[in-house]
Amino acid sequence: MSLLAVGTVAFDAIETPFGKTDRIVGGAATYVCLSASYFTKNVNLVAVVGDDFPQEEISDLNKHGISTEGLQIKNGEKSFFWAGRYHNDMNSRDTLATELNVLADFDPVIPESYQDCQYLMLGNLTPIIQQTVIKRLKNRPKLIVMDTMNFWMDIAMDDLKETLKMVDVLTINDAEARQLSGEFSLVKAAKKIHAMGPKYLVIKKGEHGALLFGEGQIFSAPALPLEDVFDPTGAGDTFAGGFIGYLAGQNSISFENMKKAVIYGSALASFCVEKFGTERIKNLSEQDINARVIEFSKLVQF
Amino acid sequence: MSLLAVGTVAFDAIETPFGKTDRIVGGAATYVCLSASYFTKNVNLVAVVGDDFPQEEISDLNKHGISTEGLQIKNGEKSFFWAGRYHNDMNSRDTLATELNVLADFDPVIPESYQDCQYLMLGNLTPIIQQTVIKRLKNRPKLIVMDTMNFWMDIAMDDLKETLKMVDVLTINDAEARQLSGEFSLVKAAKKIHAMGPKYLVIKKGEHGALLFGEGQIFSAPALPLEDVFDPTGAGDTFAGGFIGYLAGQNSISFENMKKAVIYGSALASFCVEKFGTERIKNLSEQDINARVIEFSKLVQF
Repeated sequence: MSLLAVGTVAFDAIETPFGKTDRIVGGAATYVCLSASYFTKNVNLVAVVGDDFPQEEISDLNKHGISTEGLQIKNGEKSFFWAGRYHNDMNSRDTLATELNVLADFDPVIPESYQDCQYLMLGNLTPIIQQTVIKRLKNRPKLIVMDTMNFWMDIAMDDLKETLKMVDVLTINDAEARQLSGEFSLVKAAKKIHAMGPKYLVIKKGEHGALLFGEGQIFSAPALPLEDVFDPTGAGDTFAGGFIGYLAGQNSISFENMKKAVIYGSALASFCVEKFGTERIKNLSEQDINARVIEFSKLVQF
Repeated sequence: MSLLAVGTVAFDAIETPFGKTDRIVGGAATYVCLSASYFTKNVNLVAVVGDDFPQEEISDLNKHGISTEGLQIKNGEKSFFWAGRYHNDMNSRDTLATELNVLADFDPVIPESYQDCQYLMLGNLTPIIQQTVIKRLKNRPKLIVMDTMNFWMDIAMDDLKETLKMVDVLTINDAEARQLSGEFSLVKAAKKIHAMGPKYLVIKKGEHGALLFGEGQIFSAPALPLEDVFDPTGAGDTFAGGFIGYLAGQNSISFENMKKAVIYGSALASFCVEKFGTERIKNLSEQDINARVIEFSKLVQF
């Protein structure tokens, strides 16, 4: 089944205790699409870049079967740029620079050929743009997954709550689930967030794995214990891409299938952090992914 | 197989966002013994209390099949007392009072009838007392499990390292594993801690579950997502008691059995936090425990 992914396609400059990069390609939608491409054909991208964005990077996406018909290229403008430095614990980071550039007036145009998409991934963007995408689809997709972050809770909570009413699955981290709900207990937080709209909630806990809530059930996915986390940038988006990509590939949104989707998303995220940026998730084999999923399975078996 | 547990038997006064208690019975060895008693007969306690300790509390332990022959009662002295207040997140707490009392010169005497114990649980105590217990056993137990805390890393690291050389399993939390090893990655931390002595390491992560490292393998146990954590006091000791109790009951220290032991320990800990102090873990049925273990199993199945 075809998947539509909306989000940023951007440049990042990253510093970690292991090294630093110059401007490399990043952005939520980049990670989502690459990750999803391992599970489903017909991955369709809606995003915006400036004319500084390299054609070969677009070709790389196309080689992964990703349609870039919906990627707007703004002449004379620059792509979104983010620079950040991770602390030694790799769980916290400082933003060193944010240049919105083309993102400042992003108007998400959905090509006619994308209109039949059954799975919609709303990557982290302003809640208003996320809403606009849903409104511009002639038919409601079978499943709408939305990612967001604390930043929007701080400055656009009302818009965010409106958007939440329109989606099926929300993916956020544990601190964000607590902020959004005002509850410390994640079980209570999930109940409040369900009441805001999303029937399903994925709480991403980084090195502690992820929790999936829905249909009165809870699924706990482990994280793969890693010797080194080289660069966590994009891990959450890679997770989301693997999650929705797996669901689209199987064309099933049962809770049982969502559990597997959480594991496949976690597996892709565990690759993502092994190298800078998209380097690792650009070059995975089916064998790599299946071997990693078996590791997840062994990790929790008793 | 018989189990010997050494640790504190004490009074606690606890404040949580849900309420507060007067002096109630606590102490690491109390939790360890009660928890272990659900899995193995012949649980033997070595500890010290003052003459302020109620006889009925000792009878309660006996009713659980726990031998208190090794519980020293010091006339004219007071039992160890700890008072603490948990913060709203229940993950951090302030110590309001610590009165060592009888603990100040605790000399762990092992009754002759305990000498054949095959499983030894060293609850949190000074590393020197933990060493003394091992030295006073005529035969080395089949398995020695040791709990400790950051406090001893701060003030008695050399003694702690000596004791670590003598034990098979260490149980600590994630922050303590990082402090002890100087490594942020828990995988790297585990390698360094293995090199210090313990062939097996359990890292307790509270609401995020636990990790078991040993024999080149890793097992990830979930925590049960709870609506309310009423009182976390003793949860780590209850975990340790369930862990070693299960191993002793099965009389198997294979890695496969240790995985199950981690789950049974986690199940007991999930009961512990439901009420103040030992209230909940004093009154469990086999059915309660088995139902909870099934919940753990369902939580990770995919």
